Amino acid sequence: MRQIAIYGKGGIGKSTTTQNLTAALATMDKKILQIGCDPKADSTRMLVGGVRQPTVLDTLREVGTENVTLEEVVHTGFGGIKCVEAGGPEPGVGCAGRGVITAINLLEELGAYTDDLDFVFYDVLGDVVCGGFAMPMREGKAQEIYIVASGEMMALYAANNICKGIVRFAKQSGIRLGGIICNSRKVDNELELLTAFSERIGSRLVYFVPRDNIVQRAEINKKTVIEYDPESNQADEYLQLAKNVIENDNFVIPRPLEYDELEDLMQESGVLA
Amino acid sequence: MRQIAIYGKGGIGKSTTTQNLTAALATMDKKILQIGCDPKADSTRMLVGGVRQPTVLDTLREVGTENVTLEEVVHTGFGGIKCVEAGGPEPGVGCAGRGVITAINLLEELGAYTDDLDFVFYDVLGDVVCGGFAMPMREGKAQEIYIVASGEMMALYAANNICKGIVRFAKQSGIRLGGIICNSRKVDNELELLTAFSERIGSRLVYFVPRDNIVQRAEINKKTVIEYDPESNQADEYLQLAKNVIENDNFVIPRPLEYDELEDLMQESGVLA
Repeated sequence: MRQIAIYGKGGIGKSTTTQNLTAALATMDKKILQIGCDPKADSTRMLVGGVRQPTVLDTLREVGTENVTLEEVVHTGFGGIKCVEAGGPEPGVGCAGRGVITAINLLEELGAYTDDLDFVFYDVLGDVVCGGFAMPMREGKAQEIYIVASGEMMALYAANNICKGIVRFAKQSGIRLGGIICNSRKVDNELELLTAFSERIGSRLVYFVPRDNIVQRAEINKKTVIEYDPESNQADEYLQLAKNVIENDNFVIPRPLEYDELEDLMQESGVLA
Repeated sequence: MRQIAIYGKGGIGKSTTTQNLTAALATMDKKILQIGCDPKADSTRMLVGGVRQPTVLDTLREVGTENVTLEEVVHTGFGGIKCVEAGGPEPGVGCAGRGVITAINLLEELGAYTDDLDFVFYDVLGDVVCGGFAMPMREGKAQEIYIVASGEMMALYAANNICKGIVRFAKQSGIRLGGIICNSRKVDNELELLTAFSERIGSRLVYFVPRDNIVQRAEINKKTVIEYDPESNQADEYLQLAKNVIENDNFVIPRPLEYDELEDLMQESGVLA
């Protein structure tokens, strides 16, 4: 069982990429548990036809720790993917990251991590690399980290910051960076920039997912592209991403850049004037 | 002195909108202190010509609380705007929201809130309405909240969640919602959807900022549109937004929607199928 966390800046298409990736893996007969670790609880939405499922933390608050059952919080979606949303704190109270760990611990106790699983995916908000959201790294819940990024400055800044978090916990928890996934924003020289960034931090670009409006059309219909139009070019892109993740054998402790180096890199690529 | 917090989902254009708004206000001779409360510390970047300034928390860590001076953490940008970045925790450790409050308290002690200020703006990450990021609301640092949103589902979901945070703290701290600012993504029926959403929560759409590539061109040149091309149509849009904020007299405790109501609203507008 490979346990993988996908991090990335808000708005980067992290949940979209993750769901299309796991849907692609499911069509390759992989058994998957996907755990959304974003308080917005939208990480598995397109896998379950848009139905809003009760989150682990909401369920905990409603019925109490003693009474939660796996059936209440695990929902089987497209391709047999087991879908869970950790959920968030009540607005304005408590630590969102700590809630995520509470949810994961409960899932472990309830026996959600069954032996037949090939992959467990954690989809984690990456804007805030605070102690809370770093917990899936720190506790070694995930062993492999992938970062979704684009050629936009703040996406790379967030990616670099996530790398700093990995470095901090790599020794104690054994986590490693599996690579960067580009979810293209059609920024000029984006492929070159992302390739250069990935190499500079000692990792590699796992895949460059091109931008295609079919992704939005599928989302409006509450489906991944894999389900909505499996014959489309974009479905092929996600299938190739899935293959690259399956075959990946490049796991590193990254070397985050200094801020100036990051800015230089972007100036070389014309992202900054 | 009006103290205003701008919240919004990551990637929504919250910092871009805030900087163009404060730059517009500055051209109207308003005296402004702008405090970035996003760990990515990019909230005042275009006001200071792209120069990365040391954050309050970084400075605290380097020189110690006793030795921080206002000059080290406050930088005068476009139109005399006093620019501060609160900064974030070291990647993977501590609470990002608590850091924001530490930074604000220090600024108060150091005398950053001078009597000549017309506005203090807080630019706050809104993906995580945890106890930390709700602190500017809870502690009553900001009295008025504006939420930047678009017609995308998760932008509205985040906006609704922020409203729940406002409700929670409205009594104890006196905070009120000043309204919704749409930063258009060119989603179909976006104006109608945002107007309907704003009314349903008992507030109103303060302004609809259309999408224009000049915003990105200005950003590449490390400037707001107000500075980059003050004669452009888009500059006029931000000036009108600024006027609406100045003249706003509609401050409410919002009525957040249930999730089903939110989804119905989006289905009526065709955002969801």
